[in-house]
Amino acid sequence: MKIAWIGTGVMGKPMALHLADAGHEVSVYNRTLEKARALGPKVKVCESIKELVKGKDVIFSIVGYPSDVKEVYDEVMTYADAQTILVDMTTSSPKLAIELYEKAKKRGLSMIDAPVTGGDLGAINGTLSIMVGGDEKTYSKILPLLEKMGSKITYMGKAGSGMHAKLANQTVIAGNIIGIAEALTYAQTKNLDPYQMLEVIVGGSANSWQAAKNGPKMVQKDYQPGFYLKHYLKDLKLVLEEKDDLKLPIVEKVAEIYQKLYDLGFKDFGTQAVIEYYIQKLM
Amino acid sequence: MKIAWIGTGVMGKPMALHLADAGHEVSVYNRTLEKARALGPKVKVCESIKELVKGKDVIFSIVGYPSDVKEVYDEVMTYADAQTILVDMTTSSPKLAIELYEKAKKRGLSMIDAPVTGGDLGAINGTLSIMVGGDEKTYSKILPLLEKMGSKITYMGKAGSGMHAKLANQTVIAGNIIGIAEALTYAQTKNLDPYQMLEVIVGGSANSWQAAKNGPKMVQKDYQPGFYLKHYLKDLKLVLEEKDDLKLPIVEKVAEIYQKLYDLGFKDFGTQAVIEYYIQKLM
Repeated sequence: MKIAWIGTGVMGKPMALHLADAGHEVSVYNRTLEKARALGPKVKVCESIKELVKGKDVIFSIVGYPSDVKEVYDEVMTYADAQTILVDMTTSSPKLAIELYEKAKKRGLSMIDAPVTGGDLGAINGTLSIMVGGDEKTYSKILPLLEKMGSKITYMGKAGSGMHAKLANQTVIAGNIIGIAEALTYAQTKNLDPYQMLEVIVGGSANSWQAAKNGPKMVQKDYQPGFYLKHYLKDLKLVLEEKDDLKLPIVEKVAEIYQKLYDLGFKDFGTQAVIEYYIQKLM
Repeated sequence: MKIAWIGTGVMGKPMALHLADAGHEVSVYNRTLEKARALGPKVKVCESIKELVKGKDVIFSIVGYPSDVKEVYDEVMTYADAQTILVDMTTSSPKLAIELYEKAKKRGLSMIDAPVTGGDLGAINGTLSIMVGGDEKTYSKILPLLEKMGSKITYMGKAGSGMHAKLANQTVIAGNIIGIAEALTYAQTKNLDPYQMLEVIVGGSANSWQAAKNGPKMVQKDYQPGFYLKHYLKDLKLVLEEKDDLKLPIVEKVAEIYQKLYDLGFKDFGTQAVIEYYIQKLM
């Protein structure tokens, strides 16, 4: 198939290359062109979205913020051929996903929302979990492509449902990561060995992916981003935007904590830097 | 060895039986005597703590609340022979554990705090995780006994450290379980299939022991206690009592939520009943 790919960051780069490796003809575009060129000879680099989208079967995107998604698809929908399938894999606004789905439909295009979890390693290893929203018929057409990028693909329902599922996933992580931070802080004030403490945590009913992966990083104050704090804050804000009159006190509190860290200059660190809120007593 | 066991509830019963099965001479006492008698012919049932503790090498206890621990050890320390080792496995107050350790020492006894995680199944299968505080020399003497009950034994340091480690463990779970409840509630308001949602959660970076075990129960509104809500609330209150001037906003909020559920009659349900706070909009 002829594939267009928009956004070749930490996630987009390996994902696009998996499609090229599977034998598809992949063209890529990135706002910072050097990042697109870094994908090497397996893909064609285009210098504009207009150039990129012509004559393609499927157009994928994975960019930063909902505002970037909006901007990208304003252009995509202006220039894409009729019947092209559009797939946004950014973690973005469900409301925007529904809006774009409707807009695409009016122009004879099909749109799918398909955000992912699994981080940079999942993208590199092709083991992402992908949550899909949109028409099931369109979904089945692109499923073979998604299977090149992920090992767990879940169709969640109509347009926007992929985004909702991703936001619910991020909600679980909010409680999870902050619970670990509070526990490690408590343990530290009681002079417990943090590594033994982590062993206890991952060895029983408090175990989690976050404890295993981010727990040791919190202890070592290793704030290298696996997942950027600024992107996680964006996700939490999307939950708060979308929750309507539902009360989610923990997400609210965790978003407030991440906002504080963002404001204090931690935005380009990993989500595990939340432990600094407790170390520095920022409350 | 000659062993005394106090408290033969859901946890204590299988734990005491493991020691009997290992060939030790086990005598048991329980406030409600029928529960002690339910252990069958492998153990001797005593009708008072005074009768129980005479001539024993090690005395174990696992009861409900710190007030029960205090009451039990007032008697134990009055009647126990010199040099007996006392092991409290209740999740109880670290301050009380230190107090009892000092009091035991003055009377020529040794005291260990050794709370557990792993639930009723861990107790039955002998796969508990046990966190130990007290003198290392005493710890090494009872380690072979602990190994009959648990598969993961961690020495955390001086008296009270086992209790602190357990409270830190419960702190992790606080964030974890409430994050799952908020996520499932959000997903439900967005008409996502809850089982598919759980699959997404356990299939990626939001995965946890709590999501795997309590997630499905929340969805099915199955509130049978694996771990009693009233006992978990007790644990959270102990964290708040012990944290001194440390600020732990998530534990505070989660304790407030569980208190509300406790007050509304949910105390004998499992911890997963926290989802009712969101279903019934109790905030």
